Amino acid sequence: MSSAPAARDLANAIRALSMDAVQKAKSGHPGAPMGMADIAEVLWRGFLKHNPANPHWVDRDRFVLSNGHGSMLLYSLLHLTGYGVSLDDLKNFRQLGSPTAGHPEFGDAPGIETTTGPLGQGFANAVGMAIAEKMMAAQFNRDGHAIVDHNTYCFMGDGCMMEGISHEAASLAGTLGLGKLVAFYDDNGISIDGEVEGWFTDDTVERFRAYGWHVIPNVDGHSAQEVKLAIENARKNTDQPTLICCKTIIGFGSPNKQGKEESHGAALGDDEVALTREALGWKHGPFEIPDEIRNAWDAHDAGAEKEAAWQQRFDAYRAEFPELADEFLRRMRGELPADFDQRADAFIAECQQAKEKVASRKASQNTLDAFGPGLPELTGGSADLGGSNNTVWKGCTSISADDASGNYIHYGVREFGMTAAMNGICLHGGLRPYGGTFLTFMEYARNAVRMAALMHQPNILVYTHDSIGLGEDGPTHQPIEQIANLRMTPNLSTWRPCDTVETAVAWKHAVKRDDGPTALIFSRQGLPCMDRDDAVLANVAKGGYTLLQTGDGQPEAIIIATGSEVELAVQAAEALGAAGKNVRVVSMPSVDAFLSQSSDYQEAVLPAAVRARVAVEAGITDYWYRFTGLDGKIVGMTGFGASAPAGDLYKHFNITAEAVQAAVESVI
Amino acid sequence: MSSAPAARDLANAIRALSMDAVQKAKSGHPGAPMGMADIAEVLWRGFLKHNPANPHWVDRDRFVLSNGHGSMLLYSLLHLTGYGVSLDDLKNFRQLGSPTAGHPEFGDAPGIETTTGPLGQGFANAVGMAIAEKMMAAQFNRDGHAIVDHNTYCFMGDGCMMEGISHEAASLAGTLGLGKLVAFYDDNGISIDGEVEGWFTDDTVERFRAYGWHVIPNVDGHSAQEVKLAIENARKNTDQPTLICCKTIIGFGSPNKQGKEESHGAALGDDEVALTREALGWKHGPFEIPDEIRNAWDAHDAGAEKEAAWQQRFDAYRAEFPELADEFLRRMRGELPADFDQRADAFIAECQQAKEKVASRKASQNTLDAFGPGLPELTGGSADLGGSNNTVWKGCTSISADDASGNYIHYGVREFGMTAAMNGICLHGGLRPYGGTFLTFMEYARNAVRMAALMHQPNILVYTHDSIGLGEDGPTHQPIEQIANLRMTPNLSTWRPCDTVETAVAWKHAVKRDDGPTALIFSRQGLPCMDRDDAVLANVAKGGYTLLQTGDGQPEAIIIATGSEVELAVQAAEALGAAGKNVRVVSMPSVDAFLSQSSDYQEAVLPAAVRARVAVEAGITDYWYRFTGLDGKIVGMTGFGASAPAGDLYKHFNITAEAVQAAVESVI
Repeated sequence: MSSAPAARDLANAIRALSMDAVQKAKSGHPGAPMGMADIAEVLWRGFLKHNPANPHWVDRDRFVLSNGHGSMLLYSLLHLTGYGVSLDDLKNFRQLGSPTAGHPEFGDAPGIETTTGPLGQGFANAVGMAIAEKMMAAQFNRDGHAIVDHNTYCFMGDGCMMEGISHEAASLAGTLGLGKLVAFYDDNGISIDGEVEGWFTDDTVERFRAYGWHVIPNVDGHSAQEVKLAIENARKNTDQPTLICCKTIIGFGSPNKQGKEESHGAALGDDEVALTREALGWKHGPFEIPDEIRNAWDAHDAGAEKEAAWQQRFDAYRAEFPELADEFLRRMRGELPADFDQRADAFIAECQQAKEKVASRKASQNTLDAFGPGLPELTGGSADLGGSNNTVWKGCTSISADDASGNYIHYGVREFGMTAAMNGICLHGGLRPYGGTFLTFMEYARNAVRMAALMHQPNILVYTHDSIGLGEDGPTHQPIEQIANLRMTPNLSTWRPCDTVETAVAWKHAVKRDDGPTALIFSRQGLPCMDRDDAVLANVAKGGYTLLQTGDGQPEAIIIATGSEVELAVQAAEALGAAGKNVRVVSMPSVDAFLSQSSDYQEAVLPAAVRARVAVEAGITDYWYRFTGLDGKIVGMTGFGASAPAGDLYKHFNITAEAVQAAVESVI
Repeated sequence: MSSAPAARDLANAIRALSMDAVQKAKSGHPGAPMGMADIAEVLWRGFLKHNPANPHWVDRDRFVLSNGHGSMLLYSLLHLTGYGVSLDDLKNFRQLGSPTAGHPEFGDAPGIETTTGPLGQGFANAVGMAIAEKMMAAQFNRDGHAIVDHNTYCFMGDGCMMEGISHEAASLAGTLGLGKLVAFYDDNGISIDGEVEGWFTDDTVERFRAYGWHVIPNVDGHSAQEVKLAIENARKNTDQPTLICCKTIIGFGSPNKQGKEESHGAALGDDEVALTREALGWKHGPFEIPDEIRNAWDAHDAGAEKEAAWQQRFDAYRAEFPELADEFLRRMRGELPADFDQRADAFIAECQQAKEKVASRKASQNTLDAFGPGLPELTGGSADLGGSNNTVWKGCTSISADDASGNYIHYGVREFGMTAAMNGICLHGGLRPYGGTFLTFMEYARNAVRMAALMHQPNILVYTHDSIGLGEDGPTHQPIEQIANLRMTPNLSTWRPCDTVETAVAWKHAVKRDDGPTALIFSRQGLPCMDRDDAVLANVAKGGYTLLQTGDGQPEAIIIATGSEVELAVQAAEALGAAGKNVRVVSMPSVDAFLSQSSDYQEAVLPAAVRARVAVEAGITDYWYRFTGLDGKIVGMTGFGASAPAGDLYKHFNITAEAVQAAVESVI
C-alpha cells in the first residue's frame, strides 16, 4: 500500500480489464492487449505527452493502435489515465451505442486519434500525422519557440507488417526523415492462422533499416527497463523514424493460451480468466481497479502540467508573433480564411465569363492557382503523377527530409500509403491535404478512401483520367465501375465536373467540406465550357441542375449527364429541340450534393412524372437506374474499355450525341 | 555481314522499334524499352526457354513485364523472335483493334503471359506463376522425370518497387523459397515525377535480402556480359528467388532525353528519333529490321528444338506413368474431371434434402469437403483467415518452401498479393486457386479482382463476413458498398447465396466457369435452408428465381432478396400471404447469372408489369434501383454499420421482416 505499484501490476490492470471486457462481450481480442500491456505502461506513464482533460490539445503526442483489434488496450489506457471512458463503457465493450466499439472508432470516445482495424492503415495514418507535425513545425516554429513539438507513437502487429501499405508508409517515412515517429513492432510470432513462421519470415529489422529507419532490435517487450531505454534511445534520434522491435508473448499471463493463436481473437473463457488472474497475481474482481493502481495511472495532474507548460510557451510565441499565433490557431481549428467564399465565387464567375475549353484536370490546376495563394493550409501531392494529375500549382514547394516548410508532398508510386497518410494529416490538423492519382488506381487506395469517409475527414482526392476518354493507355487504365463505387460510399462526396465552372465549384465544395472526404474526378481530354446565366450558375453547387431546356414547362424527356458527356447531352438535346422536342439537360456533377437538396428542388429538376429519361456517362451503366428507373435508357459502358485514341473509343462504344438522341427518341 | 551481329545491335532493334512505334502513335513509353533492351536481349536470346510457334507450350519459361507501360519492349521481342505479332501490328501500336495495346493485354497477342500496367501486379502475377510451377512440379514430377521445370522471369521498375504489393509478393516468394523466380529491377533512378531520390530512397538490395531473396547487386544493365553472369548466377540458386539489380539509363541512346523523365512516357519527337538513330549507329529506316538482325533474333528453330526435347522427356514420363501424364495434360488444359457435374449435382440435392441451418461460410466449407476430393487442381488459401473464411477443408495440406506437394497456401495478411498471385496461378495453368478474406478487405485487393475479370481468369474469390451480420467487429469490418462494387465489375460473376443449397450451386458455377473470376460471398451468421421442389431447385443456377409465391398468377408485389435477407423476405411474404396478398419472393444470389438468362425467363421471374417491387439486402440500397425502378422500395443500408451483436444491428438499421412487409404494403 505504501510503496508505489510495480510496473507489472500497472500493466496487469490493462490485462485484467481487457480479458474481462472480452469475456463479458464474449467477443474480441485479448491477446494483443495482454501482450503489449507492459510496453503501453512504460510509454503512457513515462513518455506520452497528453492531457486527459483536453484530448484536443494541439501539441499532444499522437498515439495510434494500428493493430486495432487490440482495442481494449486503448480503452483500458484511456479509462485508466482519465479520459471520458467509464468503467460502464468498458463493461459495454462492443455493444450498440457504446463508445467502446469492437475496433477503435475515431469520434466515439475521446482520445481515439484514428479509426483502426483495417491492418497497416493505422501505421500509415501515424506516418501522416508525423508528416503534419514536421510540416507544421517548419511552417510555424520560430527560433526559441517550438510550439509544434510532439511525437507520434504507433503500435503495430505482424498483420500490419505483412500488409503492403506498411512498405509504402515506412519507405516514405524513411525518405522524409520523420524523426519524431516511433513505432513499436509487437513481434509475438502469432497471427490468426497460427505461428507466422509458415508465412512470414521477413527480417523486419533489416527491412526497416533498408528504408532508412533507426531500428532498435531485440527488445524484451515484457521488461519495463528495456522498453524505457529503447524509447529514450528512439527519442534521441530526431533525424530518422524509429522502429522498436519488441519480442512479446501474445496473451501474456494466460497459463494455457499465452503464446498461442487461441488467445488472439476470442474470449479466454471463465476458467482461463480465473487462472490468468491467479498467474498474474491479480487479486481483484472483474472490472475492479484498486485505488493505488488507479492513482498511479491517473494522468490528470501530469497532463495539466504539461499542457500548462506548452501554453506558457505558446503565450510567449503569441507575444512575439501575434499574427502567426492567430493563424496557427485558425489552422488548427480547421477554419477557412474569412475571404475564401468571396474569392472562390469571384473565380467561379470568372470561369463562366472566360468560357475556356480545357481538360477538367487543367481546370483543376487553374482553380488551385486561384484558390492556393489564399489557402496556406492546402497541402498538395500525387502518387508520382504530378504532371498528369495537374496537382502542382504555381505556389507549390516540395518538402524533403531537410526542409519541410513547403506545401507539396511527392508521395511516390504509393496510392494506398498516400491516401492513408492524408487521412493522418487531416486527423492531425492544421493542413488540408489533396492528393492525386489516376481514377482507376483509386482502387489501390480503396479502403483508405472508405476510412476517410468513415472518420469524417475532409481529405480531398483528385482523380484524373476519368474514363475511356484517356485513350491509348487502354482498359487497365480506363475507369468503368470506379465512379459508381465512389458514389455508393457513404459520406463520400463525389464530383465529376463538365467544365471549368463546375470544376471550380467542386473545388470550393471540397475545400469547405469539414465532415468528410471529397473525390474530384477530372478528364484528361479537353471539355468545352457551358453557357449559364446567373440563375443556372447559382444552381451548380446543388450538384444537379437544369443546364438547358429546348422548350418550356414540363419537358418531354430529360437527359442526365456528367463530366465529359454533358457536351454530348447538349448536342443531342439541341438536335431534338431543332426537331421540335422539349428536352431538358440536367448536368449532375455530384449525385450526393443533389440528393441532399430539398425534395422540392429535386422534383423541380427531375419531375417524377417525366419518365422519359436518358442518362449518359462514360462509366458503367448500372448506377444510373436510380434516376432512369425501369422505363429510361442509359448510354454508357457495359464492359471494359480498349486501347485507342479517345475519339475512336467514344465511337466504338457508341457513346455519342447520336446515340443519346436515339435513346431519347426511343423513350419519348 | 559475315560475322554475327553484336548484342548491342540486336538490342538496338528493340530500341528502334520502340521509339518508332511510340513516335508513330504519338503516345506511349519509349524510356523503359530503350533502357532494358540490353537485358532483354541477353535473357531472351541466351536463356528464355520458349517456342514462338507454340506460345502455349506448358513447360515454357514465363516472362512478365511488370512495368507494363514499356509494352513496346515486349511487342518488339515477340515480333523479333517470331510470335504472331507483325510489323503492321507494331505500326498500329495503341490503335483500336490492334493486338499491340498501350499496355500488354493478355489474349490480345500470343506470348503475352499476363496483362500489366497497374504497377506491381505483374510481379505478384510472376510470384503466382512461380508458385504454380513449384506446386505442379511437386505434384507431377517423378524421379528422373522433370516434366515441370521452367523459370519465371520478371522485369520491374521503380514504380513496381514502390507499390505495397511488391512487399507482399516478395515477402511471400521469399518464405516459399521460389528458386525458379528471377526478377530484374530496372534501377534507372527516374519515375514520372522526375529523379526518384526525392521520394524513393530504399536500399532495395537489403530490403530483398530481408525477404530471404538471393540478390545480385550493381549489375550494369547495359553490359551483356554482366547481365549474362547474373542470370547464370541466379539460375544456380534454386532455393531462393533472385533479384538482379540492374543499373540502367532510361531512354538509352537518346542524346538529349536519356537519363531523364522526358523519355519516360512520351514520344521522343522526330528530331530526337533521328538523333538517336545516329547515336546508336542504327542505319535503318523506321520499322526496318535488316535480315542479319532478324535472323539472329528468330527463335523458331531453337524453340522447336527445346520443345521437342521436352516432348521427348514427356513421352518417357507418359510411358512410365500413363495415368499421371493424362491427368497432367487434363489439368493443364483446364478441363474438369468428367464426373464433376454429377458429383456436384448429387451434393446439391443432398443439401436440399438435409436442410441444414448453418452459416454460408460453413456451407462453403462443407461444399469444399464434398467437391475437393474429386478436384486435385483445387488450390486453397486465405489471407490469414483460414479459420474464419472456412477455406480449410478436410483434404487440405499446406505447402512450404521445402514441400510444395500440398494444396493449400497460407498467403499471410496479404490480400492484394494473394489475389494477384492467384491470377498468376490461373495464368500458369494446372491449378484452380481459391482464396479467402473478409469481404470488406476485398478492397485491399480491389484492382487484382478487376484484373482477373479483365484477363478472363477463373480465379475463385471467397469473401466471408458479408454484412452487418458479422456483428461486433463494427463498421471497419462491415461491408456496405462492396457487393454492389463487385456486381458492377464487368465479367466478374458475383454470388451471395442464402443457404447451403445456393452455396453449393454457387461453388459449382465458380468451378465450372472458365472465362472469368467468381466472387463467392458468405455470411458469418447461421442461415436457414429454404424449401424447394425439384423445379425450383433447377432454377437456382439461373441466378434469380421465384423461391415462393403466396398466390397464383401475376403477383401483386415482388420481393427480391439475397443471402441472409432471403429469410426476412420469406417471413414478410408469409405474413402478407396470411393477410391475403399475392406476393412473390425472388431469391437472387447472382444478378449477373440472372441477367444472362433469356428475356423470357427474366420476364417470367420479374414481370415488367409488376412495379410493386421491394428489394432487401444488408448492403447499400443504391444498387437495387436497377430492379425496383422509381416506384419500388429498398430495405438496406444507407450509411456505415456499427459495433454490436448482429441481431441488435439488424433491428437498429431496420432490416427486418416487418420493415420488408411495411415496404411492400407501401408500394402495393
